[in-house]
Amino acid sequence: MAEVEQVTSQAGRTLTVGVLGAGTVGTQVIRLLAEQADDFTVRSGARLEVTGVAVRDTRARRDPAVPRDLLTDDATAVATSNDIVIELIGGIEPARTLILAALKSGASVITGNKALIAAHGPQLYAAAAAAGTDFYYEAAVAGAVPVVYALRESMAGDRVTSVLGIVNGTTNYILDEMTTKGLSFADALATAQELGYAEADPTADVDGLDAAAKCAIIASLAFHTRVGLDDVTVEGIRDITAEDIREAHASGCEVKLLAVAQRLGPGAGSGSQGVSTTGDTGGTSGISVRVHPALVPTDHPLASVHGAFNAVLVEAESAGRLMFYGQGAGGAPTASAVLSDVVAAAAHRVYGGQAPRESSYAALPVLGPEAAVTRYQVQLLVDDAPGSLAVMASVFADNGVSINSVRQSAYVGQERAVVTIVTHPAAVRYLDAAVDGLRRCDRVVEVVSVRRVEGD
Amino acid sequence: MAEVEQVTSQAGRTLTVGVLGAGTVGTQVIRLLAEQADDFTVRSGARLEVTGVAVRDTRARRDPAVPRDLLTDDATAVATSNDIVIELIGGIEPARTLILAALKSGASVITGNKALIAAHGPQLYAAAAAAGTDFYYEAAVAGAVPVVYALRESMAGDRVTSVLGIVNGTTNYILDEMTTKGLSFADALATAQELGYAEADPTADVDGLDAAAKCAIIASLAFHTRVGLDDVTVEGIRDITAEDIREAHASGCEVKLLAVAQRLGPGAGSGSQGVSTTGDTGGTSGISVRVHPALVPTDHPLASVHGAFNAVLVEAESAGRLMFYGQGAGGAPTASAVLSDVVAAAAHRVYGGQAPRESSYAALPVLGPEAAVTRYQVQLLVDDAPGSLAVMASVFADNGVSINSVRQSAYVGQERAVVTIVTHPAAVRYLDAAVDGLRRCDRVVEVVSVRRVEGD
Repeated sequence: MAEVEQVTSQAGRTLTVGVLGAGTVGTQVIRLLAEQADDFTVRSGARLEVTGVAVRDTRARRDPAVPRDLLTDDATAVATSNDIVIELIGGIEPARTLILAALKSGASVITGNKALIAAHGPQLYAAAAAAGTDFYYEAAVAGAVPVVYALRESMAGDRVTSVLGIVNGTTNYILDEMTTKGLSFADALATAQELGYAEADPTADVDGLDAAAKCAIIASLAFHTRVGLDDVTVEGIRDITAEDIREAHASGCEVKLLAVAQRLGPGAGSGSQGVSTTGDTGGTSGISVRVHPALVPTDHPLASVHGAFNAVLVEAESAGRLMFYGQGAGGAPTASAVLSDVVAAAAHRVYGGQAPRESSYAALPVLGPEAAVTRYQVQLLVDDAPGSLAVMASVFADNGVSINSVRQSAYVGQERAVVTIVTHPAAVRYLDAAVDGLRRCDRVVEVVSVRRVEGD
Repeated sequence: MAEVEQVTSQAGRTLTVGVLGAGTVGTQVIRLLAEQADDFTVRSGARLEVTGVAVRDTRARRDPAVPRDLLTDDATAVATSNDIVIELIGGIEPARTLILAALKSGASVITGNKALIAAHGPQLYAAAAAAGTDFYYEAAVAGAVPVVYALRESMAGDRVTSVLGIVNGTTNYILDEMTTKGLSFADALATAQELGYAEADPTADVDGLDAAAKCAIIASLAFHTRVGLDDVTVEGIRDITAEDIREAHASGCEVKLLAVAQRLGPGAGSGSQGVSTTGDTGGTSGISVRVHPALVPTDHPLASVHGAFNAVLVEAESAGRLMFYGQGAGGAPTASAVLSDVVAAAAHRVYGGQAPRESSYAALPVLGPEAAVTRYQVQLLVDDAPGSLAVMASVFADNGVSINSVRQSAYVGQERAVVTIVTHPAAVRYLDAAVDGLRRCDRVVEVVSVRRVEGD
């Protein structure tokens, strides 16, 4: 009843929508706004009318869903003359200037531009607050999977301790191909490029930069702290070999490119944001934010995330472990995320209310890579003499690292063996000190490999 | 910056909180509001002060987190004299009367009372709308997993086609025990009761009523349609045997108690709510809402949800498949969900805005159990004579059901065999007609079992 009355009383209201960019996502957004116009009217409280679509080339061939008469190359006009502006151009400029102009004009802005948010999030938030309007970006992380909302609002009554995510579908697809078909990185990348899963210039994906931008956004929201792209320690997947993946399998693990945002204790962080202990950090408090390949045990929920799917695992003090899973990219899933933001922003304009503002009050220090807490899998070529294991174990112990498992994987010649050691979680500076100790140890012929293990 | 200014300008503001019920969840909520008071102040924009805790017996022993001087047996006073009222009593009365009184007094109400919402949701929504205040219930479905939000807001720009969930931890635990230890239902239930996972009177859990209430809430939100408890077709797990589970394993499946909410096409539903086709429904449009045990293929994401965990799988036209996973019950996870609602409601009181109102505009018809679209696994004892398979296949075909797989599982005597047939999705009325046809078929000695298979 109430719903019907609301709709009736707002029947005349129209909100204008400007779209910047008409690529895959933009086309889908425009199509759905037209096809499901009545649904959007009821759900948002106002008729949503697309009045302009800014593109670089107004004469290029386009999907018929994009009305030709709405096309314009005057992006500034579209950005500054609508109630709701959807930015889908990507990249830093002109997206940043256009969004700032849109916010200044009083428009609610929706974007999925992770690179821009990771670089200039605080400026965009401030512009939205100054104009008293909304700034939404659900599509920036994990497509239609509502991770931004979950961290921004669902966790508002809880304390997040860590977030572990597979947030880049391209690299996940490549690692899957290497795993299932035994391909080299180069061959798997070529396949991904042929199928359109990877771009001609794959740098942003395979070097971890796309995941790093998402990781910065995740960490900012999870820990109420400003985290920019430069705060993220990044390592991509170019150096992963088919042999690495075979070795991982032998250890009961999958190789995944992970985005990790971790709160490290003990003791309180800034303000009242309490900090729970995650491994022995040697007294350091703050957050660790990083993207790197890691071994993930096959029975861990993230190990079974395949292909272009994304998954984000949130651990919080009260909620425990939560996982969110779904398609992380593609026109339709991304459009779904954009349109949920459009409905929220439209409803605020009709019924009042506002999107959450920037929450950076905790201002926790972002720690360097040496403070990260992780587990190492270390493969050693050792003298297979009595007492070797005790010597190696004491090297770990002397550096404050406990050992979780030891496995002798192969004999090499008569007096040498390959030993695989997995540690318990410890700070990277302790783990690295232990590895240095092993390199100096006369029982160790060679440190064959050192890999991170994530996901307990 | 903006955040700091907001906090400063609201520094003096206090919102009062009344808590109805001080059980596990209530105690945890009160503890966290006190322990993390500064965090809640920054996040919600106001100091949250618990002014009263209504309990039946003010002199009972309680956790020291609940201040003795706040206890009262005057629940009406607590309900009607606070800005925010948290109802954690459960059951229909007096919870319903208290919530209505609280809403009428202008309080924002937060509850996790699934039975009440499934029975009286529209009345509570209407009371909140009439009073211009908020009504939130994230904790009613799947504990800390933000399923209510996801359906109520994340999917606002999309069209949900189906929701499949494991939403009752007790039954999931019991089925797990039966699976891993080969226990009978009675023994597994007894174990669950000993460990406190099942109540002394396990009816609400094992007969599927708790899951049915959650399923009604899920369907209401997913399909913008009023769905009450009476609309849900319910079957519990009492009749599941250890043999059923062994047989399921032999077919590559797990047995799970599922909540299913499904939109059925073809053709448009009410208004502009388009309907996509899910299997051949014979022209029926509407929604199917049901709770029952089903075989789930082991490689389906829901098959690996174990113990007391919950998971909800949402399929939507644009978003594709999304999964939400986490702890579905327990004091801390439920408190996390309640507190996220508290922060949202408090922020609305400080900054303006409102919780989503009831959305029932689509008003899709709720179809009877015969219209549900599912797959059947049928086990038959048959004459192992030439042509038997062709005869059985034609019985399915004559009833419009296609066969997905046929497996001969055992020979029984010299001329008889057990055959296991799995169909493609079809409406239950066609499937049942096919099973009736098989019963009349002279090649079929006996229809040994008929089970539902869900999750493609």
